[in-house]
Amino acid sequence: MTIKLAIDCMGGDHGVSVTVPAAISFLSRHDDAEMVLVGLPDAIEAQLRKLHALDHPRVTVVGATEVITMDDPVEVALRKKKDSSMRVAVTQVKEGRAGACISAGNTGALMAVSRYVLKTLEGIERPAIATTIPNEQGWGTTVLDLGANADCEPQHLLQFARMAEAMVAVVDHKAHPTVGLLNIGEEVIKGNEVVKAAGELLRASELNFYGNVEGNDIFKGTTDIVVCDGFVGNVALKSSEGLAKMIGSMIKEEFTRSWFTKLLAAIAMPVLKRLSSRLDPARHNGASLLGLRGLVIKSHGSADARSFEWAIKRGYDAASNGVIDRIAKAFANKAGATSTTAGNPAGGPETDSPDPHSSKHAA
Amino acid sequence: MTIKLAIDCMGGDHGVSVTVPAAISFLSRHDDAEMVLVGLPDAIEAQLRKLHALDHPRVTVVGATEVITMDDPVEVALRKKKDSSMRVAVTQVKEGRAGACISAGNTGALMAVSRYVLKTLEGIERPAIATTIPNEQGWGTTVLDLGANADCEPQHLLQFARMAEAMVAVVDHKAHPTVGLLNIGEEVIKGNEVVKAAGELLRASELNFYGNVEGNDIFKGTTDIVVCDGFVGNVALKSSEGLAKMIGSMIKEEFTRSWFTKLLAAIAMPVLKRLSSRLDPARHNGASLLGLRGLVIKSHGSADARSFEWAIKRGYDAASNGVIDRIAKAFANKAGATSTTAGNPAGGPETDSPDPHSSKHAA
Repeated sequence: MTIKLAIDCMGGDHGVSVTVPAAISFLSRHDDAEMVLVGLPDAIEAQLRKLHALDHPRVTVVGATEVITMDDPVEVALRKKKDSSMRVAVTQVKEGRAGACISAGNTGALMAVSRYVLKTLEGIERPAIATTIPNEQGWGTTVLDLGANADCEPQHLLQFARMAEAMVAVVDHKAHPTVGLLNIGEEVIKGNEVVKAAGELLRASELNFYGNVEGNDIFKGTTDIVVCDGFVGNVALKSSEGLAKMIGSMIKEEFTRSWFTKLLAAIAMPVLKRLSSRLDPARHNGASLLGLRGLVIKSHGSADARSFEWAIKRGYDAASNGVIDRIAKAFANKAGATSTTAGNPAGGPETDSPDPHSSKHAA
Repeated sequence: MTIKLAIDCMGGDHGVSVTVPAAISFLSRHDDAEMVLVGLPDAIEAQLRKLHALDHPRVTVVGATEVITMDDPVEVALRKKKDSSMRVAVTQVKEGRAGACISAGNTGALMAVSRYVLKTLEGIERPAIATTIPNEQGWGTTVLDLGANADCEPQHLLQFARMAEAMVAVVDHKAHPTVGLLNIGEEVIKGNEVVKAAGELLRASELNFYGNVEGNDIFKGTTDIVVCDGFVGNVALKSSEGLAKMIGSMIKEEFTRSWFTKLLAAIAMPVLKRLSSRLDPARHNGASLLGLRGLVIKSHGSADARSFEWAIKRGYDAASNGVIDRIAKAFANKAGATSTTAGNPAGGPETDSPDPHSSKHAA
């Protein structure tokens, strides 16, 4: 089976100079992959020429005349730039010409465009952003939402857990991944009102619910999945990125303080390299926009080619494991079983109306 | 001027074996400090004997017959154990026999007991927990709330900012510390409803308001103070602790992998030691319970003597700089100036009624 991936080549801080080399490199490692490169044809072709890949048999270039910048507000992305590389790339998924779309463009625009083009799956009120954060157990903890929904209702957290469960089950091959609810452990108050109610929904659900977890459990790997609202998830993620960066600069500072420490660094290079590869944020690049009728992966805007390739890998893994079908099934099974979902099938005010024409996707 | 400090000697995972040595060590470094050691007299005296400090001229032992454990629910701490070391230690502050109380006991109990005994300052609806988190600029960023208030109203965040401003101004000697409002930067949504409204209050206030900051700004040190609700603050703190721990174990693992890496570690010891001292969580031990008519410092429950001594230092610094007076003044000046505070002088449902008899404290 061929896995076709649509790349928004213009997105991110570096555009084609990062996205095109990453795509070509990915093809060299995956014989069953095909790339649909979307963007300004001249810019893409110039990169392909450099890489001697102009006639690559598994590359198709699809033109788009506009580019959504990192600063473009959502309204511009949605209503003004209708022929943007981002929108055309997402449309490849909608029309079955790609199994996933990967973009390093701005998150707000990508979520809005994806939601508009693809629509949400039935039973899902709010799409969420999920990623895998490295933990002490090995690969990582899947955390969501990371910023799509600042204010959540309890049933949204249940839906996030269900989406993540479906994804982790097929991508990480875990039959019944455990789910933790991010909470605070102080005795003063155990969680806010939304989290308390979400805990009850999760406990009553079919999910493998572990119970409450705290911030440090994300890195301990206490559960496979951690759910929280987008505000809390975003703060946890950004704080951790900030701390990792600070520790990284301190290590660098200490090892470049004098000729002696520089010598030490040279001798200790194999150890320092192993360390930095274990902590390498590039390996964890790529967040999934879950809950849509198609796969969209968001890469860090500042990603380099190696890092962007990891985001492509995430799209490839999700597409080849049929994540969307699995999520759709998880919600189809539960429709009617859970009162909160069944009682509000059309969703809250932010829900798109389901579109029966876009429920099928090629993989 | 003598700074008297009341120590809850029975609190924390290790009780007197940590708290008493820390107190005696602190006295040896600070000639103007005096200790009121509160707890089971036999246990305290046994420790003092070991340390040859039974007749220390700057030590007073105050007996208490009960101990609040780390698992005791708030109700037990408040209503059952009325002669607990924690409560008696806090009462030393209330009655002017100490300028601050330091406890490693459980946070929920400590907040409840402190609030009950000391009452809140006029104009403050909710006490908050604040601490200093190391940042790239040097000393650290003061962050609050860290878990006392999971659900906050916008005016609470304004009050937190005002309390922290008063503390940082006198303790860190910064005339106009900058205040950041913890928010998320994604375009999808800029913050939840409470944070949006808090931003408007902060902008209209007399504070040196920088604007929104994100999780990574805590470690960058973008602002002197970062305010957030207790749920978000607790998750950010615990996530960071979890990540720091994971990185620490990875460094250890990599340097103990083989005889070669162990040799490297031995040679690199001066560098590794400097690194670990810069990242040393002990140096940042001690969170302040702000908004009460007296100073209470909460130490990590698992603190060792060196770490507990840092918490004592925090109480000492706060007491000797007159933090409570400064906070009280900040709110007295603003009473009437800010509609949200002035409009609700008695506070929300959780507010203790002001107690005119407890507004004076010895320093």
